Amino acid sequence: MENYFESRRTRRNFLDKEVPTEMLREIVGEAMRAPNTGNMQTYSVVYSRKGEARKALEALHFNQSASTGADLLLTVCADFNHFTRWCRLSDADAGYDNFLSFTSAMTDAVILAQQIVTIAEMRGLGSCYLGTVAYNAPEIAALLKLPELVVPVACLAIGWPADRGTESERLGVDAVLFEGTYPQLSDKELLKNYEAKDLYAPNEQFVKENGKRNLAQVFAEIRYPRSTNEPISEKLLAYLKRAGFMK
Amino acid sequence: MENYFESRRTRRNFLDKEVPTEMLREIVGEAMRAPNTGNMQTYSVVYSRKGEARKALEALHFNQSASTGADLLLTVCADFNHFTRWCRLSDADAGYDNFLSFTSAMTDAVILAQQIVTIAEMRGLGSCYLGTVAYNAPEIAALLKLPELVVPVACLAIGWPADRGTESERLGVDAVLFEGTYPQLSDKELLKNYEAKDLYAPNEQFVKENGKRNLAQVFAEIRYPRSTNEPISEKLLAYLKRAGFMK
Repeated sequence: MENYFESRRTRRNFLDKEVPTEMLREIVGEAMRAPNTGNMQTYSVVYSRKGEARKALEALHFNQSASTGADLLLTVCADFNHFTRWCRLSDADAGYDNFLSFTSAMTDAVILAQQIVTIAEMRGLGSCYLGTVAYNAPEIAALLKLPELVVPVACLAIGWPADRGTESERLGVDAVLFEGTYPQLSDKELLKNYEAKDLYAPNEQFVKENGKRNLAQVFAEIRYPRSTNEPISEKLLAYLKRAGFMK
Repeated sequence: MENYFESRRTRRNFLDKEVPTEMLREIVGEAMRAPNTGNMQTYSVVYSRKGEARKALEALHFNQSASTGADLLLTVCADFNHFTRWCRLSDADAGYDNFLSFTSAMTDAVILAQQIVTIAEMRGLGSCYLGTVAYNAPEIAALLKLPELVVPVACLAIGWPADRGTESERLGVDAVLFEGTYPQLSDKELLKNYEAKDLYAPNEQFVKENGKRNLAQVFAEIRYPRSTNEPISEKLLAYLKRAGFMK
């Protein structure tokens, strides 16, 4: 039998076919059995179905095909708002307006997102994370009316897949898994590890199309350059402060 | 057939029985097929097997039983070190010493961690996240010799489970999943959502043992109080800066 975990692929093209709300509720309900910090469950999921009302959200994801084509967009949030209100209503002094609480809630939200992905895919749905959530976090928060202490950390496009998805390469296990302590790799050993990416034929094609000399240059100079990363970092930190997570 | 996702439980007690290294390599290898940002794979896993050499790491996890009893402790790290070195060796200007890169690598590391949990548990192993990783991140980093741009974000205790684990309650789906925009719940609606926790019998017992009036007070005043959260937040932010992620 095919091993799901070994053979899974991200899907970016979807059929024009609804995912029943009851199916979504089942998937999220099962995913909520995933581990979380202290069983505080400091996460929430806002979902948006394909249609006119969703166009503004799609634009914040740069109208990438997965965002416009998927029946569902799930915005998964680090959420200490409800928990904090529950504490206050219970006459308890909630001290969760700080960075530790953000990383704790973010961890739990990402675990939840990934569990949703696994369950959805095992039921035959396709999914794709939209990394744009970090680029436009404050604008997405405004659009979805997220209050203080609720920050979007992952966005999932989910729907019935229209194709098998594209194959992609991975590093070898020994480039990632180390025993005891972090290794001091020589330059040669390190480059050897990245050969899995450098020599992967579609990547070589990609480098040529982008007029670069190698894949690392495509990453560092075109896809995720310093000139984009640094202003977005500033924007993200300023937003976390406004959202109440940087006390 | 039992639905794994619905019935899974965290395991904190483990048999004194080895998890074969080949099994660990297979699990991590399969987990690496999980989605990640731009296929940069900015994560790494340092594992430590039970024994004398691991005692210092266990102490940094406050010697909680899962940390001392599990055959394996996996420290899952947000890692832009190897990627940055690969860029430099490829004559590419890597700009990943910023907060956006940290959140991106942290997201991918947590996705990897959760995928490891799911695959390991589906193969009959038990697992438990150790939240202490956030409390002692810089000390853990020093012990595992993590260089710049490598930050531990999740720690997993993994082994053969000695029992079925403890049942735990969850919020209802409708307390977490919202359509369109974030809801403005009334106090009454919010308290109704948290009844799943307030009225859960073991929680009522827990409140009594702690001499508090309700569960929220146990969370906010004993388990995760402001007086602990705020100094740890400061320590974590200072460490992220030293690790090179706050440019």
